[in-house]
Amino acid sequence: MQRNRFLGDLLSQLFDRQSQMRHKDDTRSIYELCEALMSAEGEVSGFRLASTVLTRYRALTGSEKCAFFEFLNAGMEIDAKHLALLAKRYADTPSTDRYQALSRAAEPRRQEFLRRLNQPAGATAELVAMRVDLLQFLGEHPDLRRTDNDLVHLLRSWFNRGFLVLKQINWDTPARILDKIVAYEAVHQINDWDDLRRRLYPPDRRCFAFFHPSMPDEPLIFVEVALTADTPGSVDALLSEGREPLEADQARVAAFYSISNCQTGLTGISFGNLLISQVVSELALEIPGLERFMTLSPIPGLNRWLKGQCDDDQVGHVAQAILEGVAPDEDICAMAARYLLLAKRDDGKPLDPVARFHLGNGARVHQLHAGADGSANGMAQSSGAMVNYLYDLSHTERNHEKFAMHGTVVATRDVLAQSTAPFVTKPKEQMN
Amino acid sequence: MQRNRFLGDLLSQLFDRQSQMRHKDDTRSIYELCEALMSAEGEVSGFRLASTVLTRYRALTGSEKCAFFEFLNAGMEIDAKHLALLAKRYADTPSTDRYQALSRAAEPRRQEFLRRLNQPAGATAELVAMRVDLLQFLGEHPDLRRTDNDLVHLLRSWFNRGFLVLKQINWDTPARILDKIVAYEAVHQINDWDDLRRRLYPPDRRCFAFFHPSMPDEPLIFVEVALTADTPGSVDALLSEGREPLEADQARVAAFYSISNCQTGLTGISFGNLLISQVVSELALEIPGLERFMTLSPIPGLNRWLKGQCDDDQVGHVAQAILEGVAPDEDICAMAARYLLLAKRDDGKPLDPVARFHLGNGARVHQLHAGADGSANGMAQSSGAMVNYLYDLSHTERNHEKFAMHGTVVATRDVLAQSTAPFVTKPKEQMN
Amino acid sequence: MQRNRFLGDLLSQLFDRQSQMRHKDDTRSIYELCEALMSAEGEVSGFRLASTVLTRYRALTGSEKCAFFEFLNAGMEIDAKHLALLAKRYADTPSTDRYQALSRAAEPRRQEFLRRLNQPAGATAELVAMRVDLLQFLGEHPDLRRTDNDLVHLLRSWFNRGFLVLKQINWDTPARILDKIVAYEAVHQINDWDDLRRRLYPPDRRCFAFFHPSMPDEPLIFVEVALTADTPGSVDALLSEGREPLEADQARVAAFYSISNCQTGLTGISFGNLLISQVVSELALEIPGLERFMTLSPIPGLNRWLKGQCDDDQVGHVAQAILEGVAPDEDICAMAARYLLLAKRDDGKPLDPVARFHLGNGARVHQLHAGADGSANGMAQSSGAMVNYLYDLSHTERNHEKFAMHGTVVATRDVLAQSTAPFVTKPKEQMN
Amino acid sequence: MQRNRFLGDLLSQLFDRQSQMRHKDDTRSIYELCEALMSAEGEVSGFRLASTVLTRYRALTGSEKCAFFEFLNAGMEIDAKHLALLAKRYADTPSTDRYQALSRAAEPRRQEFLRRLNQPAGATAELVAMRVDLLQFLGEHPDLRRTDNDLVHLLRSWFNRGFLVLKQINWDTPARILDKIVAYEAVHQINDWDDLRRRLYPPDRRCFAFFHPSMPDEPLIFVEVALTADTPGSVDALLSEGREPLEADQARVAAFYSISNCQTGLTGISFGNLLISQVVSELALEIPGLERFMTLSPIPGLNRWLKGQCDDDQVGHVAQAILEGVAPDEDICAMAARYLLLAKRDDGKPLDPVARFHLGNGARVHQLHAGADGSANGMAQSSGAMVNYLYDLSHTERNHEKFAMHGTVVATRDVLAQSTAPFVTKPKEQMN
Repeated sequence: MQRNRFLGDLLSQLFDRQSQMRHKDDTRSIYELCEALMSAEGEVSGFRLASTVLTRYRALTGSEKCAFFEFLNAGMEIDAKHLALLAKRYADTPSTDRYQALSRAAEPRRQEFLRRLNQPAGATAELVAMRVDLLQFLGEHPDLRRTDNDLVHLLRSWFNRGFLVLKQINWDTPARILDKIVAYEAVHQINDWDDLRRRLYPPDRRCFAFFHPSMPDEPLIFVEVALTADTPGSVDALLSEGREPLEADQARVAAFYSISNCQTGLTGISFGNLLISQVVSELALEIPGLERFMTLSPIPGLNRWLKGQCDDDQVGHVAQAILEGVAPDEDICAMAARYLLLAKRDDGKPLDPVARFHLGNGARVHQLHAGADGSANGMAQSSGAMVNYLYDLSHTERNHEKFAMHGTVVATRDVLAQSTAPFVTKPKEQMN
Repeated sequence: MQRNRFLGDLLSQLFDRQSQMRHKDDTRSIYELCEALMSAEGEVSGFRLASTVLTRYRALTGSEKCAFFEFLNAGMEIDAKHLALLAKRYADTPSTDRYQALSRAAEPRRQEFLRRLNQPAGATAELVAMRVDLLQFLGEHPDLRRTDNDLVHLLRSWFNRGFLVLKQINWDTPARILDKIVAYEAVHQINDWDDLRRRLYPPDRRCFAFFHPSMPDEPLIFVEVALTADTPGSVDALLSEGREPLEADQARVAAFYSISNCQTGLTGISFGNLLISQVVSELALEIPGLERFMTLSPIPGLNRWLKGQCDDDQVGHVAQAILEGVAPDEDICAMAARYLLLAKRDDGKPLDPVARFHLGNGARVHQLHAGADGSANGMAQSSGAMVNYLYDLSHTERNHEKFAMHGTVVATRDVLAQSTAPFVTKPKEQMN
Repeated sequence: MQRNRFLGDLLSQLFDRQSQMRHKDDTRSIYELCEALMSAEGEVSGFRLASTVLTRYRALTGSEKCAFFEFLNAGMEIDAKHLALLAKRYADTPSTDRYQALSRAAEPRRQEFLRRLNQPAGATAELVAMRVDLLQFLGEHPDLRRTDNDLVHLLRSWFNRGFLVLKQINWDTPARILDKIVAYEAVHQINDWDDLRRRLYPPDRRCFAFFHPSMPDEPLIFVEVALTADTPGSVDALLSEGREPLEADQARVAAFYSISNCQTGLTGISFGNLLISQVVSELALEIPGLERFMTLSPIPGLNRWLKGQCDDDQVGHVAQAILEGVAPDEDICAMAARYLLLAKRDDGKPLDPVARFHLGNGARVHQLHAGADGSANGMAQSSGAMVNYLYDLSHTERNHEKFAMHGTVVATRDVLAQSTAPFVTKPKEQMN
Repeated sequence: MQRNRFLGDLLSQLFDRQSQMRHKDDTRSIYELCEALMSAEGEVSGFRLASTVLTRYRALTGSEKCAFFEFLNAGMEIDAKHLALLAKRYADTPSTDRYQALSRAAEPRRQEFLRRLNQPAGATAELVAMRVDLLQFLGEHPDLRRTDNDLVHLLRSWFNRGFLVLKQINWDTPARILDKIVAYEAVHQINDWDDLRRRLYPPDRRCFAFFHPSMPDEPLIFVEVALTADTPGSVDALLSEGREPLEADQARVAAFYSISNCQTGLTGISFGNLLISQVVSELALEIPGLERFMTLSPIPGLNRWLKGQCDDDQVGHVAQAILEGVAPDEDICAMAARYLLLAKRDDGKPLDPVARFHLGNGARVHQLHAGADGSANGMAQSSGAMVNYLYDLSHTERNHEKFAMHGTVVATRDVLAQSTAPFVTKPKEQMN
């Protein structure tokens, strides 16, 4: 069995080399190959052609890649005039034939092209990587947003919830995957192997990730969970080296303290809500003693907002004190409460991106904590403050609807009180 | 480990029962649930709503299912007028915003609806089963072809080659899958366990199937292969009970003697060509001694065509003799050659469906065999005649192009000669 | 991945062929090779030598194999005189050195020889197969029992409970294993694939087997279980084709209706008790609703014993009536009760081998059933009667001890009453 | 599937807790439990009793453990007088019955006791751990060597080559196993995650370990391999951070640069020779381009030996110069050659333990390298010198035999020449 794998690997390398030679033998340009893939040749030899196009694409320079996308954008564009005609015809006298013609015309050729590319093993990952390239060109080539629109449409269909696989990440996970977890952790950096072990090995830690069957080595998104006896108020305490782990059946709270998206190429396709609700279900089944599911989340926009408040008559002195690191905890929480509940964008949604995510999922603002994240990043972005968002599955739908329709931020009575409480810090004038 | 699985199964049943209860608790109609799935509620609770809709759907009667599809067809239809307007606008003055608006309007709501249905485990299989239902309504409700068009479009994207997994079916395959192989075999019926063993166990037999990761228990298509020393001329000999198996490294020919599509719900989505070319690659790597890859195929339309030739002046007496079982082998082959090479549909493609499939894949007609299939079915459809189609990968593209563009049927010199040879059987007049 | 396996298999065959060539290159006799394996050469090249010896052994004729065992028996015998001397010395003045010398001398060389044979992949299975050969020679060569004694000693150590793996056999099991289940079923023959499906597929059926890691394709022993609502009284009913299966959570009784040892080469090494107690634990965890664990067992020696009772004054007429098939059910049960409870061997243990097994495991005789097994075999051995043995884990130890020390057969009050009840069938004289 | 595992883990914990309670319920002493395990009770309830004994053992203090071993040593001792009698009887008149009686008496009861302990999951690992304890007592309690003798005898039989599983350790290996690799590496310490990656991830690195099926998380021994273009002369170069990896098919040499035994409890049971020859076979099959298999080994006893040579008339000044770090490379190699080839123990075997191991496996001394290991340990033990031992499978048997019988150290001509070459370093007198 062992032997088989070794030999297999060997021969599959030989095989890859053979197909690389075949790629070299085909002297056509990448554009000719793309057209061939869309032609009758593509129906019989699509697998090989797709493989050759992907190999060629990888070898392109940055500006060549940009030109390639311009080709997709312009050369495989929808024929809008024709589409308008077919749509009008169908609207006038509907028929199945007209519908099918309309349906074909309504889709730009690049959609079919991208589907035909997705034939060889590993192609899905290459298409995701292709989008990473594409995203970089959008700034200077805004017209490429059309191609991006179509690529996202396809990826969203392919990375549909029904195809995602939830896997637990733990100490039995291969190093190859753990390397990715370390690399993709975006909230609380994993410093080394020991730090990773502290997050995966103890009985009161869990980590879950979504994978796609065609990209088995690549997590799409993952969440780190701490099982705790009570509402966690500090990520420093959660991740401290010396702490005594809890037995899982002693835990009452599952605290989601880090959620990281892994694939830049899937930007705009949201997995977070699905992951959280699935993990809540898994944990509720595994650990019947759990009573609450909540996050321990950063407040990434707090300090930036505070800087904008420094000249405000009412709160400027408090903002100033917090930014100078001299404010009492009560005032940090009070200002954080104001920020989360009242600071809104033009569209009525909260300024804070993490708040928008969890409130959009139907969570509520549960509790605020000063001095909860002493890391450089934590101090810089929120003066060390953090917040719990509570996921109470019996309320998420209602919360979500209120939030989606009216921008209502649901919060506990305590947090509501904090958002209107008088400050301890007095204005400098009063100090005189 | 063993224990875990047992317990897990138990609890997952409990879990299923819980969710069934939840399904019952939701008193809304299936149509209201569908609308909820498309609304803001669907964004937070899509998983549960999709699961409830699928549960409800399964419980519908036939006519209720038909009404459900009419609802998708009419109620989630494209707004063609609006689309015509947006297409015209974009054609007049292209912009990314207009493109995105056009792009959204170009897709009927039922596409997004079907994607949102595909969230719970097993949903993909249920959507495929849904199409089995839909296909039955198309005859009496031809307007439902619009919904069928959209469902096929989605399934084709989801069952893209890049997502299919090739697996070998052999004596290490679980009984659950083998049951499906027995049930789905469409060419040469598998009679019992011993018959199945004769096709999977000996060293000169192979079987390969495509699977989709979301339907792990369901083969999509499979091919049965016999490794032989020479061109096989009789399926009876291939499947005979007493035969002496060949060691794989003695084989020179890989004979594909049965290809069966398994999923009615995927009708119209073709996997055969992909499967054959992939299996050719696998076998070429596994068994370096193989020199030729060919089929041993039925000629399902031969007798039907012969019946139509009985009054023909030139060949009528031969057709008659074959159908009466009194024709010599040469004449059976000669008429089969005429049938495969010359009998065409209005579109210029061969009458015979199996010929269309293999020739469309770029194979050529290699050799004809009388007395090759003595089964009741084989005698009834082709008077026992069979044919080899040869897959020579260095010619498939060219063959395919000739066939696709000009309807040219590529055949060996021998078969060409047979198609014009004089008959042994003499007309009855001459016999006097 | 798939590819790897194919190629791997290929190359591993090449590899095997290479080593076969190496085997042929070594022109020494099997006896010289055995001595080489025991010499310094064996320390460096033991793997190859063992492989060659095993290959040579397989090719021996029956009488050559017998000679081979005579060689082990005589040529690798213990030196009893030397052992007596060393034992005496150690008894006189114990020391570690003397102990080690004694310990070495106390083991015949063939033990170490057999251990050295067990190096190549598959060697364990070959040693088990070797014992099958050896068992056949014991009748005519009783002196070979010494070698058998040593081989069993080794196998018992290697097939220790700690190394056995319990696996569930179900519809996800590979056909290769299921073939073995069909072949090894020793109690109620499995007729075909459908019969097998009836025992493995329904939700109220279970099957468990012990495997050894070095023989992954070979079950050692397996038990078939039916989950039932109540004490099962007929194997015909359990296995009937049309029956309606029970949902597992509705079951109250787990009925072990067939236990089969698979490996003749492991005769004398008992796994049955371990299997039953392990399966009871598994099922108790999987299905909390289960209240009782019992067998539905044959009574293989009943009719043979009845034949010996025909002349008995008290019971002869009843025995006669049962054997003639004219006795009422009560009398069949009454005689079966007498047989199981009172018919003993010279050593005080029950005559019936199945009874000895279950009672020796600490089970008790629970209930008797006439007309329970209408198969030819069931009628011939016990006139259709069967019995339940109950495994109540809180009593098995005490039951076992009573049975082991005093031969006490523990039975329910009902069965005890049956064993002393007057018969319905009257003696022929009385009938006049 | 995922869910099952979580739940299963949960319930298996519940189960463990139940059995812990059962352990507490049994109020007998560990000695009474041991006797029970050997009695009739052990036949029915051996699994539970063994589990309880092992749980009790783990909780013992050091001196209690020692007492426990004394109990096995004295209380389960062989009856040597009885054995002497039976051996004499069998020598006088051999019979099968006498042989079986002798055979039973020849084995101390503790052997059967240890086999009966090995029933619960994990028991094998606990017996190995038990031996770690036992080894610590041997110094002060030399009589316990008798029990150690028996335990080793059993473990050697259970860890027979036929039961070991070779696995490749690579970047797909679970972190749980990699943690063990880091902990057990005994030759060239693995400093951190990046260091480990450098040894497992690049295409020119391999690592293989033996495992036992009953201890799946515990490697028994592992070897680290570097694929190189030529004979490697420095472990510093092999492990350097910046080096450019070689493609596997460019490699000509497989260099075994670290072999580590993992299990103290298996001290005295040798796996090294088996591992090396198996890995040579695997690599030869995987990488056909490999031409030579050799080690890059430390010379752990060199400096110690040099210290003893300082007063020697002929070589003392060279030894001195090497130890002072002022000798030229030629002289370091010359002295290392003398050490490896000529410095012998009383039994005629080389002083150096690593040399004894590889030469005992039939390898030869291939090449010496000064300045090859600049680590603190490397400098301290051998002044940075290292050596290649060559494994040429066509010579290992002959080499081994020469070495085993005559203590002959086989070496290349170059190394032989070095061992007699005049030194560059001149005696101090001559320098005046």
